[in-house]
Amino acid sequence: MKGATKTRDVKTSILDATDRLLARRGYKKMTIDDLAAEVGIGKGSVYLHFSSKEEIALSHIDGIIERLKTRLYEISEKKSGCDKRLKEMLVERVIFRFDSVQHYTQSLDDIFANIRQRLLERRTRHFGEEAKIFAKLIKEGVGSGAFAKINPDDAARSLLLATNSLLPYSLSTEELGERKEIQKRVSGLADLLLKGVVAR
Amino acid sequence: MKGATKTRDVKTSILDATDRLLARRGYKKMTIDDLAAEVGIGKGSVYLHFSSKEEIALSHIDGIIERLKTRLYEISEKKSGCDKRLKEMLVERVIFRFDSVQHYTQSLDDIFANIRQRLLERRTRHFGEEAKIFAKLIKEGVGSGAFAKINPDDAARSLLLATNSLLPYSLSTEELGERKEIQKRVSGLADLLLKGVVAR
Repeated sequence: MKGATKTRDVKTSILDATDRLLARRGYKKMTIDDLAAEVGIGKGSVYLHFSSKEEIALSHIDGIIERLKTRLYEISEKKSGCDKRLKEMLVERVIFRFDSVQHYTQSLDDIFANIRQRLLERRTRHFGEEAKIFAKLIKEGVGSGAFAKINPDDAARSLLLATNSLLPYSLSTEELGERKEIQKRVSGLADLLLKGVVAR
Repeated sequence: MKGATKTRDVKTSILDATDRLLARRGYKKMTIDDLAAEVGIGKGSVYLHFSSKEEIALSHIDGIIERLKTRLYEISEKKSGCDKRLKEMLVERVIFRFDSVQHYTQSLDDIFANIRQRLLERRTRHFGEEAKIFAKLIKEGVGSGAFAKINPDDAARSLLLATNSLLPYSLSTEELGERKEIQKRVSGLADLLLKGVVAR
């Protein structure tokens, strides 16, 4: 058991170090040597956990989305009204991602220019996973009569699409603007979207 | 008068040639010499109309948005219902931009990497100009009772923000997907947004 915990700790430490190095110098300039030094382990130990630099970067992105999905699930299970939960989820999605990369000086597209294709595939998958969590809540809302008779899957995808432009894909967080301003914009947008979803 | 027409023709020819060169090789590899050769004029003639390559590229982008704004105005002046016009404008905004750069193999962010900062400033200005056209129609809809009592400026900005992720900023048109698919997505999104705007 102790060995398993240690393995997980090292993996987490590598991903934490990845986050710091990406913020500091971007993907292209990050080397496995740097990473090993940052964690304080040998280069070979890094390769025990990951097959390549690309895998490490993609795992790091996956980790952010996994944590976000957990947050979204938690909100979707709250006892408040469907509309209130849906708004909270939309706002959380944007703000969580903003916070996750607010220390990066470049946009994600610039940081990951070298692995663009695989990152885009990842985004498509993550989008689908997030949409499922939203669709589940919308289905509940449609079933209870709180929401109009909409298709939960289509509505979930539209809602996410509508808030995508506030995510730090192509714009750095600096270019996106102040956190407070982003929060205000996503909240206003969510209110408008909610009106389109709730039953009349 | 004839001189003025000629001057305008040359300017238009330069911008048309810019479009072809950007599609073919991107901003970085486009030179004033190439441009002059493409139009069939001397390099000096190019400088009669534009002060720099940067100005030419930005004028090209401005031209696309000017033509789009004209289209949006035309739709906003139609005789159909406010909701119908608003949806048509949202769809047109996305599809017009898609069509304008569908022959480019890279995303606009990649093509214009060298003038990113000025391009972002441009985007902010264009966004505001488009929002004004939408706000005018929304104001009409609020006044006639077709739309709910919303703030036209805020609503316009939210509607544009919601459809921004379907624009070819950071994704090439190839990455964005099929035109038909984009049209379907923006249409579905517009329907949802419309429900949030129309009076109950």
